[in-house]
Amino acid sequence: MNIEILTIGDELLTGHTVDSNASYIAEKLLQIGHQVKYMSSTGDSLEQMEEAFRLALNRAQVVITTGGLGPTDDDNTKKAIVKVFKRNLIFHEEVLEDLKKRYAIRNMEMPAINQNQALLPQGAKFFPNKHGSAVGLCISENGRTFISLPGVPREMEQILDDEVLPYISKMPDSDSITVLKLRTTGVGESKLSELINPKLKLESSIKLAYLPTYSGVDLRIIATASTKDESDSLALSLKRHLESTVGKYIYGIDSDKLEEIIGQLLKDNDKTIATAESCTGGYLGSIITSIAGSSNWFIGGIISYDNEVKKNLLQVDKTIIEQHGAVSEECAEAMAVGCRKLLDTDYALSITGIAGPDGGSDEKPVGTVYIGLATKREKDKAIVKKFSLFTDRNANRIRASYAALELLRREILDIQ
Amino acid sequence: MNIEILTIGDELLTGHTVDSNASYIAEKLLQIGHQVKYMSSTGDSLEQMEEAFRLALNRAQVVITTGGLGPTDDDNTKKAIVKVFKRNLIFHEEVLEDLKKRYAIRNMEMPAINQNQALLPQGAKFFPNKHGSAVGLCISENGRTFISLPGVPREMEQILDDEVLPYISKMPDSDSITVLKLRTTGVGESKLSELINPKLKLESSIKLAYLPTYSGVDLRIIATASTKDESDSLALSLKRHLESTVGKYIYGIDSDKLEEIIGQLLKDNDKTIATAESCTGGYLGSIITSIAGSSNWFIGGIISYDNEVKKNLLQVDKTIIEQHGAVSEECAEAMAVGCRKLLDTDYALSITGIAGPDGGSDEKPVGTVYIGLATKREKDKAIVKKFSLFTDRNANRIRASYAALELLRREILDIQ
Repeated sequence: MNIEILTIGDELLTGHTVDSNASYIAEKLLQIGHQVKYMSSTGDSLEQMEEAFRLALNRAQVVITTGGLGPTDDDNTKKAIVKVFKRNLIFHEEVLEDLKKRYAIRNMEMPAINQNQALLPQGAKFFPNKHGSAVGLCISENGRTFISLPGVPREMEQILDDEVLPYISKMPDSDSITVLKLRTTGVGESKLSELINPKLKLESSIKLAYLPTYSGVDLRIIATASTKDESDSLALSLKRHLESTVGKYIYGIDSDKLEEIIGQLLKDNDKTIATAESCTGGYLGSIITSIAGSSNWFIGGIISYDNEVKKNLLQVDKTIIEQHGAVSEECAEAMAVGCRKLLDTDYALSITGIAGPDGGSDEKPVGTVYIGLATKREKDKAIVKKFSLFTDRNANRIRASYAALELLRREILDIQ
Repeated sequence: MNIEILTIGDELLTGHTVDSNASYIAEKLLQIGHQVKYMSSTGDSLEQMEEAFRLALNRAQVVITTGGLGPTDDDNTKKAIVKVFKRNLIFHEEVLEDLKKRYAIRNMEMPAINQNQALLPQGAKFFPNKHGSAVGLCISENGRTFISLPGVPREMEQILDDEVLPYISKMPDSDSITVLKLRTTGVGESKLSELINPKLKLESSIKLAYLPTYSGVDLRIIATASTKDESDSLALSLKRHLESTVGKYIYGIDSDKLEEIIGQLLKDNDKTIATAESCTGGYLGSIITSIAGSSNWFIGGIISYDNEVKKNLLQVDKTIIEQHGAVSEECAEAMAVGCRKLLDTDYALSITGIAGPDGGSDEKPVGTVYIGLATKREKDKAIVKKFSLFTDRNANRIRASYAALELLRREILDIQ
């Protein structure tokens, strides 16, 4: 079954907006066993849409569009559907009532222009939108299924997840695909592939991909077979092989985040954490607290950018900074120890390094980062690891923050 | 002139990679006066590429592809060019020598497989790659220009900027386009359009777009005319109108960032800043320190997630928290004042709020955020502003951080 994702909007063609809708939809479709064949973007004009709709319907059995469903004049998706499918727009009282109710709940009057949102192509199925005024549309004709979703990511994602994916899952298709993602961190792509065994021969029905990100390398398995049981079993056997060879680097599956896993571990063990950051400037704190409920385990942090803050708040001895520099094993240790004592937590993570682009030296080039972890076990000591990252400022800050989380994960799970 | 951007890679179609190359190229082309007509993505297989190349050459005069130029077996772009353009691959000694030299400088031996990188389609012009082994390719035939660039963003961007954009600029085209972006913050889209004057009649040769982001609303002007002077002058007259009506909300142009502008202002005025963050958990500190050189103005910050940290480090009186709560005007003021004194800076920004999804109440729903700014002017007082944000946790944290920076910008520039 050929599937095309067609994203609509001048903002895509001018480069103002990076097209995250297309990748969101593609990844979700892959999880239910469908690999997208075509992806394209078109502008807001009726002519451009018509051309793009006709091309997509010509080469794909399922077309999913995003954008152009708003109530104003320059929202042309429904007009293009009218032209391409030769269907009139029909007024749907129940859609309007539903919209009016949602405004009433918020004590607001519905703007008159929103009446347009109740005009839908004749014979179209529609999918409710929990977060906005544009319902999703679905037209089936001549063996083609044409689905139109709003362009606002939050609205698109809700309708896709709640309505479109279950709908597409029920469509008959020849093959079953099973997709699994194992998320690793703290290890490079080439080391992973050595450990997994380069001689591993995979049948053509199973694919293993190494997908590097700033926070680690994902191992993605795609298994194809004629039945769901077969593709599941193929994928699971490779998964077991990966777990037995590189299990200690695997922190989660699919869309798990390391900061989520860490949060869960701390919560389960009833432990608290604090942070002392220099070169990451708050980034580590910000990813820990991106998880809802993080006040259960995160007490707070010190962004000790200036050395005075390291000395005055974290009690880093000034001789450490004079003798070893602020970017040193000794300073990372003192920062972690001082932070844990100051904020009275079970653990404290510290990061000090040279993020770049300036500030490097021969001895300590850009990308040199020391990460410390203080625990209650030894009150005046910390585990410190040195990292040599080599990319740009932004990447170094992200990588260093995830390396710190991984140090903590291994400590809690006692992984050597 | 119709231009198509065609990005190549299974990682795009599986949704693993968000296609940032396409938007990068589109934005750069717009800046030199070309609006992209088509954007599409295709997979790694030779068949998919061939189909996509033929379609693109059929509908566009200029085609720019990214990806598939590596040396290994699954890099098929050159093979697809051979099939579509019916040209052989020719060995280029000078390309190989250049590659060998680059390995020699790093005292490394060139892997043998890289010899493939010196095989280029007959008659193709090639663009040097400063960061990798794949040169860019350019074939002109029958009024079509077909340009292939590597998929690694750093390599693609260098070849595009240094080689492709100058090359395309010299191609004859009918119109001149001038693009300007004015970046605003601290004001909504509808208020902006009211102030700018809804009755503003624009000629069809000039377009004004409102582009909302989490950090503010961008105003983008696109002016089209037959000469560069005319399009520049059209764009400038609208720019002046915008500056006279909403100038106080404009913090920068084009790719300026608010955190960059703030840094420059602090540096120019020889002032320092510190942060006290609750719900943003370090995000504000992390964006301030994302700017290289920020150690010149950023001293440090306290992530006072737990109320004990607010009391013990920031000296927030416990009666404030008991009587008004941690999310209150009083607490934001005390956090800012306490932080400025603790870290001995010229300014301190504080943020306390309910990021969501939980923790809201009728009186203080999710999205309620108080932002404080303490200055040296009045040592025990702070300016505090209340914000009612309404979207999700992540968006609330980003918006609150930029609102804090804007509060500081207006203070420094004395904007009411």
